Amino acid sequence: MPNKKEKTFLVAGGDLRQIYLANCLAAKYKVYAVGFSRNLMRSGDVILLDSKLKLDVRVDYIVLPIPATTDGTTVHAPYSGGAINLKGILYMLKRGGTVFAGKATDELKKLCQQNEQTLIDYLSREELSVLNAVPTAEGAIQIMMEEMATTIFGQDVLVVGHGRIAKVLMRYLTAFGASVDVTARKYSDLAWADINGCTGIHLSKINPYLSKYDVVINTVPAMLFDEGRLSALKRDCLVIDLASKPGGVDFDMAKNMGINTIWALSLPGKIAPITSGKIICDTILNIMDERGES
Amino acid sequence: MPNKKEKTFLVAGGDLRQIYLANCLAAKYKVYAVGFSRNLMRSGDVILLDSKLKLDVRVDYIVLPIPATTDGTTVHAPYSGGAINLKGILYMLKRGGTVFAGKATDELKKLCQQNEQTLIDYLSREELSVLNAVPTAEGAIQIMMEEMATTIFGQDVLVVGHGRIAKVLMRYLTAFGASVDVTARKYSDLAWADINGCTGIHLSKINPYLSKYDVVINTVPAMLFDEGRLSALKRDCLVIDLASKPGGVDFDMAKNMGINTIWALSLPGKIAPITSGKIICDTILNIMDERGES
Amino acid sequence: MPNKKEKTFLVAGGDLRQIYLANCLAAKYKVYAVGFSRNLMRSGDVILLDSKLKLDVRVDYIVLPIPATTDGTTVHAPYSGGAINLKGILYMLKRGGTVFAGKATDELKKLCQQNEQTLIDYLSREELSVLNAVPTAEGAIQIMMEEMATTIFGQDVLVVGHGRIAKVLMRYLTAFGASVDVTARKYSDLAWADINGCTGIHLSKINPYLSKYDVVINTVPAMLFDEGRLSALKRDCLVIDLASKPGGVDFDMAKNMGINTIWALSLPGKIAPITSGKIICDTILNIMDERGES
Amino acid sequence: MPNKKEKTFLVAGGDLRQIYLANCLAAKYKVYAVGFSRNLMRSGDVILLDSKLKLDVRVDYIVLPIPATTDGTTVHAPYSGGAINLKGILYMLKRGGTVFAGKATDELKKLCQQNEQTLIDYLSREELSVLNAVPTAEGAIQIMMEEMATTIFGQDVLVVGHGRIAKVLMRYLTAFGASVDVTARKYSDLAWADINGCTGIHLSKINPYLSKYDVVINTVPAMLFDEGRLSALKRDCLVIDLASKPGGVDFDMAKNMGINTIWALSLPGKIAPITSGKIICDTILNIMDERGES
Repeated sequence: MPNKKEKTFLVAGGDLRQIYLANCLAAKYKVYAVGFSRNLMRSGDVILLDSKLKLDVRVDYIVLPIPATTDGTTVHAPYSGGAINLKGILYMLKRGGTVFAGKATDELKKLCQQNEQTLIDYLSREELSVLNAVPTAEGAIQIMMEEMATTIFGQDVLVVGHGRIAKVLMRYLTAFGASVDVTARKYSDLAWADINGCTGIHLSKINPYLSKYDVVINTVPAMLFDEGRLSALKRDCLVIDLASKPGGVDFDMAKNMGINTIWALSLPGKIAPITSGKIICDTILNIMDERGES
Repeated sequence: MPNKKEKTFLVAGGDLRQIYLANCLAAKYKVYAVGFSRNLMRSGDVILLDSKLKLDVRVDYIVLPIPATTDGTTVHAPYSGGAINLKGILYMLKRGGTVFAGKATDELKKLCQQNEQTLIDYLSREELSVLNAVPTAEGAIQIMMEEMATTIFGQDVLVVGHGRIAKVLMRYLTAFGASVDVTARKYSDLAWADINGCTGIHLSKINPYLSKYDVVINTVPAMLFDEGRLSALKRDCLVIDLASKPGGVDFDMAKNMGINTIWALSLPGKIAPITSGKIICDTILNIMDERGES
Repeated sequence: MPNKKEKTFLVAGGDLRQIYLANCLAAKYKVYAVGFSRNLMRSGDVILLDSKLKLDVRVDYIVLPIPATTDGTTVHAPYSGGAINLKGILYMLKRGGTVFAGKATDELKKLCQQNEQTLIDYLSREELSVLNAVPTAEGAIQIMMEEMATTIFGQDVLVVGHGRIAKVLMRYLTAFGASVDVTARKYSDLAWADINGCTGIHLSKINPYLSKYDVVINTVPAMLFDEGRLSALKRDCLVIDLASKPGGVDFDMAKNMGINTIWALSLPGKIAPITSGKIICDTILNIMDERGES
Repeated sequence: MPNKKEKTFLVAGGDLRQIYLANCLAAKYKVYAVGFSRNLMRSGDVILLDSKLKLDVRVDYIVLPIPATTDGTTVHAPYSGGAINLKGILYMLKRGGTVFAGKATDELKKLCQQNEQTLIDYLSREELSVLNAVPTAEGAIQIMMEEMATTIFGQDVLVVGHGRIAKVLMRYLTAFGASVDVTARKYSDLAWADINGCTGIHLSKINPYLSKYDVVINTVPAMLFDEGRLSALKRDCLVIDLASKPGGVDFDMAKNMGINTIWALSLPGKIAPITSGKIICDTILNIMDERGES
């Protein structure tokens, strides 16, 4: 293992999040970056390479973006002047080195195996998902504020589901003085809703309540808001769907009914790229910690 | 006094807030309105008059907007097709009737006195100021979310002052997981800050801390952020000034320094007109309650 | 299935919790009880039987206490004048009826099987555990208040573990203005601690912090506070162990060191028997709901 | 003015609070104490004198307890072996020195005037009252926990008044998941209640609600709970009166009705003497700060 201070990283491609991630890592390690224009780099601590990748040494770690690649051969690098070859990048990594990637494809796995390199998917880490719930929930609050001609205070809000995002949202909405109902299938989730200042209502019993809500925020990736449930809502109810594809709302139907429906995906990177970069950085540091490499 | 159900109101002029106020009053009383186009009226409960004001009866109460008049002779009515004469409006009110107005001018006072009508300025009511702190604080949160590339979670925020708006802001910011300092002159205000999950720092001792904040929110209408204090801030610190004129920030100086400074005035009417209308309505109902007229 | 209103329960034995449980069930169903003296019964809605159990009809449900039996042949009934035979009790239940019990033994399971009766252990329900975290956490707060010559406000508190009880405690302690650290093994638990206003510190890194805490509250049933960690605490640190046997503190060692250590078990039944009874009742109603029997 | 480090204090008499106050001051200044037995002193930093008061130097500050004297001639010193003469104590203070006292009598004022010494009553400081609201509210929570066979979670609580103590109580009670109503006379207080997660109800309209509360906590020193209001309460409602004399409850009447009523006075000194001493210390430091003496 190299000496702690001499550990080297190469951050390749990605959007603003990866730039902040590079800055964040540079507080502890020597960090190279490729795939960004110079004027985007905030800090002088990160050493920016051009896409030709001339570097004498091989690095200990490579960090790839989310997704790592869209075409299977080049790194996803929307801010790069030139294409960055994926194999070329991996060639910069020591044998026995580690690749951190978001959404690792089978192809990438194979490449790393051939190179005797370890591949770790940081997107699969639970703490990253937990921490990402914060910008997602803040983003949902921002959408509410922008879309509504009322305060959040005093509104009747339904949160659908009781996963990570729902839990953070409940904290914010109750602080704002909304009246918050939470619907879910597990009785223990309803108990948690009650403990945390909301009212839990079993999903099987939610329909009669639907007409009272000013806002519905869905977090469950299942078609819960079909024609039946949508038609029970007030016409001026705001519906925000935070669920990943396929989402939980029949958007066409909602549009026909004139219900203001917003499908908000990938909020962390959009509303808080600095924080998103820091979250990935913290997760990578945790992984290194666990592996005794920090 | 007329029978409760027969009490009549005339809501004259103003912006969206007055329309919602009219709707809100119409839940309990008979309400006429003038100064709005028909397509703006949400509810069928309010009887819309045209600006010629042909009405056989005289009403018990008139509600004027904020401000009641800008030229001294006509009601401030930006959504009206025609001008609404102020004297003409007061003529619609019973002798002994009551005019509710925001920012009552001396002229208006004189007119009401001549007509033997009572004039009450709802803007001077403490509960209206308290309730308006909610949309103001929500608006400040929205601005933070829109301006920052980070979450509110984890940011270092300084709230300047400990009045109504500051108190509500402290509640929201701590719920979001910001680290919140509050600076004020009274030691008891600092004690309240500590009790409510923030850290109170006396204004005379705040300067050495200024360089750590990601956001500064001023609520004090006094020039506290002059060149000296501004130059102590981080270049990427966001400054939001919620203080009424003359404000508390040297905006020209801040601009020269490249500090992102936002002077946010009259947030309630801008970000939450429905709620603002409801707040005025509730205040009028409180006044009637106190006078035994509800 | 009998008609809803005609459903009948027999609540047999147990402590104050079962009396409140019987009262709670009696709001919806016909409830008999056995194993209590008449002066303990609060409500006239519950029909108290003597231990000879003369009843013409057979009931649909029987509710047994926690534990159901201590000797294998009689129901655990500390408030009963006479012994209540377990087989005799089950004889009162319809064939096909349901027995709700806490901590069901193998013997009880066999008996129910022979009688073609369904046995359901309500203690194994997740929502009951969640809801019981509330009286447990309130009990821990009460102990802190009684043992400390300071307010909770301003104290440095360490919560060990991040299970149900810890989550509820974090909510209360932060509301009281304590400075709360949470230690656990999973990085995602540390992330949750940060989100909820506390500071997460990995268990592998907690030792250097131990000397600062005024209170340590353990919720993990593993020997984490052995001689080494105990000796790192301040002498006047209060240690509260909420973990079930074997607990997480070396109590003898703590005593030798003069550290005030309190092992608080079974708090719900002790500090809030009414609520505990209600929680069991709600859990039974949930079970019936799930089975389509409510 | 003496050099900062050489400033000297004499803490004379009082209960446990004054001992902790002495310890607290000793972190910054040289502190003598009189009126305590040696085994009560926690810290070696405070120099304990016997009641004969042999001291070569004169001190800069004297701190007297609450109350300073009960008989007019000796310092109130329940933990002292011998009587401490008040004039003798003041003789220990430099001319031009300052006496800090709680509840200063006219006699004491005259004495200080004669000696050309400044007398400051720390009990009259607003921040001390604010900070004392914390142990008072915590004490009220402790009483609730000890008196009730339920959790605080889920209870219906009425807080009477909206002063300092009420504001802190609202924070704690809502965190515990109680349903909290607040009654007061000012509409702005009701608005604050609504903003802070409670429900404001005007005092003139509270009577019809009285029968629903599980707990009533009074903070107003006026006879609000006379026979009429008491008889509207549930028989098993818990009434806690935090108001100073004459209190706000007709205790005899309540006793006759079998209502559990607790008049809890002077909670800070009783339940949190360490914190109470620290609060007085912080207040004295604030006063010195304001006077440019810190």
